[in-house]
Amino acid sequence: MPSVIPADSVGLVTPQTIHFDTPLALACGRVLEHYDLVIETYGTLNADASNAVLICHALSGHHHAAGYHSMDDRKPGWWDSAIGPGKAIDTNRFYVVALNNLGGCHGSTGPTSINPDTHKPYGPDFPIVTVKDWVNSQVRLADHLGIQRWAAIVGGSLGGMQALQWSIDYPERVAHSLVIASAPKLSAQNIAFNEVARQAISKDPQFHQGHYYEQEVVPKTGLALARMVGHITYLSDDGMREKFGREMRAGKLSFDFNPQFEVESYLQYQGERFSTAFDANTYLLMTKALDYFDPAADYDDDLVKALSHASCRFLVVAFTTDWRFSPERSREIVDALVAAGKQVSYAEVESAHGHDAFLIPSPRYMELFGAYMERVARDVGIGKAQQEQKETANAR
Amino acid sequence: MPSVIPADSVGLVTPQTIHFDTPLALACGRVLEHYDLVIETYGTLNADASNAVLICHALSGHHHAAGYHSMDDRKPGWWDSAIGPGKAIDTNRFYVVALNNLGGCHGSTGPTSINPDTHKPYGPDFPIVTVKDWVNSQVRLADHLGIQRWAAIVGGSLGGMQALQWSIDYPERVAHSLVIASAPKLSAQNIAFNEVARQAISKDPQFHQGHYYEQEVVPKTGLALARMVGHITYLSDDGMREKFGREMRAGKLSFDFNPQFEVESYLQYQGERFSTAFDANTYLLMTKALDYFDPAADYDDDLVKALSHASCRFLVVAFTTDWRFSPERSREIVDALVAAGKQVSYAEVESAHGHDAFLIPSPRYMELFGAYMERVARDVGIGKAQQEQKETANAR
Repeated sequence: MPSVIPADSVGLVTPQTIHFDTPLALACGRVLEHYDLVIETYGTLNADASNAVLICHALSGHHHAAGYHSMDDRKPGWWDSAIGPGKAIDTNRFYVVALNNLGGCHGSTGPTSINPDTHKPYGPDFPIVTVKDWVNSQVRLADHLGIQRWAAIVGGSLGGMQALQWSIDYPERVAHSLVIASAPKLSAQNIAFNEVARQAISKDPQFHQGHYYEQEVVPKTGLALARMVGHITYLSDDGMREKFGREMRAGKLSFDFNPQFEVESYLQYQGERFSTAFDANTYLLMTKALDYFDPAADYDDDLVKALSHASCRFLVVAFTTDWRFSPERSREIVDALVAAGKQVSYAEVESAHGHDAFLIPSPRYMELFGAYMERVARDVGIGKAQQEQKETANAR
Repeated sequence: MPSVIPADSVGLVTPQTIHFDTPLALACGRVLEHYDLVIETYGTLNADASNAVLICHALSGHHHAAGYHSMDDRKPGWWDSAIGPGKAIDTNRFYVVALNNLGGCHGSTGPTSINPDTHKPYGPDFPIVTVKDWVNSQVRLADHLGIQRWAAIVGGSLGGMQALQWSIDYPERVAHSLVIASAPKLSAQNIAFNEVARQAISKDPQFHQGHYYEQEVVPKTGLALARMVGHITYLSDDGMREKFGREMRAGKLSFDFNPQFEVESYLQYQGERFSTAFDANTYLLMTKALDYFDPAADYDDDLVKALSHASCRFLVVAFTTDWRFSPERSREIVDALVAAGKQVSYAEVESAHGHDAFLIPSPRYMELFGAYMERVARDVGIGKAQQEQKETANAR
């Protein structure tokens, strides 16, 4: 609810839907004959289309990464802290594109969309999509927008996996890849947590094998549980201690099964809110995309060999208390990049916020993020000079 | 299914049910007028009752800690690796008592028992029981067995909390307290995982507000989910990697929602098995006992002050990859004991098995456990000599 749009905001933004008619062959063997992608863009594409930055979203993200949709919005886009005039991804110089991925539930073609073959929502019949599929769809998007080469592709968590996959599959179309709080593939523990989430959703009696739309119900309980489990893995033990400690809601124990501790009601609230805002089939698809991500698999399980195809420069960022994708996992990427002879900068940022840290604008994180993007700007020939020129022009 | 009982087993054992008629006042304010405790004992109580060891169980444990109930048993009791002739807790010299705690579902009075007031199962009306309540009930048990002072009280996880609480509440009745893979209280993250488990159970449509017995159903789905979440927290990330890696069931991805990875089907199996073997109301009670455990709360939140009441000696053991109750949490106990001027030995055991390590007989763990119990034996005056005498007698 900004009474005034902040000066460092991209301001009011409007999503656009782009329709694609060229069939897209998916990793699972199925083909999407046509599909929509919903995007938002911030800033202005320059004449030689050299200043474009692609933002890839994480599990529950979407195209609304920055700014406001209306003056009534309670909150700006999900990465507003990093995208805007003068921010790390400076929209005074970069043209920023954020999209909702295929399979999403925010306007791009996904399980909630109408299947042209049946005239009913796809539901569970929507094909399983992978990070590679997303990258292929994003290539079409780039073509549509007239972007031959991204100045940078940026993503956190599952978004970072897309940035990594781009660098391997389309090396000539990426100048810089920013892989934040990510991993080269999921661990058994990661997969296990995803499986608990999937079980919670699919065993909810309101799930109806994914055909809940027809029943006009939502598997709220399952989705809430999935989110609660997820949420615990996004926060660090330390961060939770700082945020909640063992504070009790009523000051003292009441010896019943109502929530006693702040952390319990917080989690319940988060689960409840998510369960009415997100689509269960999409959640299943996103967790599968995570599980199946394994860029080394196409290269004899050799990550070095996979990354040897890349020609961009890399920034890899990890956060000290992130235990979902720990710094160790980021270092696996860095080690493979170094072994493949690639240029990589690595930063391990001190933070108490666990995996969520990638969304939180801590000073050191934003400084290094901004400094790297400054380098990207220089690299693609859109240095300070151009920006100052533009600012002078704006001031007239 | 032992065709022959192993030589180092306590052999065939039979549980006994002990009925208590003296009302037990609980922390929640309610009173249990009478109740049963189911126990097993191994070894022989000596003449001055100085060789008794109490085994306290963890969340889903019970009285069957060692030996076999019949020659058809597939597996021995849950801590058979540590209890038996010549084992860490050597039944040639110690008299070992293991019980099922109040609120349990293995024979002691709990939610599945008949409430004498209603002639129906207690179900959700069974009072919330705390670690302090359990200790009080175990004191009655000691009195019944003629044990004035335990040579040792031993427990892992929630069991370790009971061993710790005993040392504070009944210092004169404990010679040694062995607190293994435990914590002085739960962290916000621990509570959060418990709350997910509780939500999974209580939101299962088959839960019927805890009155599922009358409906002749079981909230299997919720209980299975609760167990799956729990199970992930019992294993370490490393341990899961070692055990499952990213091995796929079918060798390659099948792009559907069936379990793809070994870890998924393993978890599903564990959840499924547990859901038919354990009572949901008991699971809720046990997680609440964990949440509410906080011995410092009675002493101005000062653990040092709480532990200054203890007069026993302590062994505290933690496992390197345990992230449910990490070594850091054990060191909090050790630091408070040292600050309180108590005698404490601390061991941090290298293990890949996470929290589960306390149940797994790794050589170093069993050696130090046995060595400490040897010291207990000397301390209470039942040294080697007595054991050798006995062995000679047995050999005759």
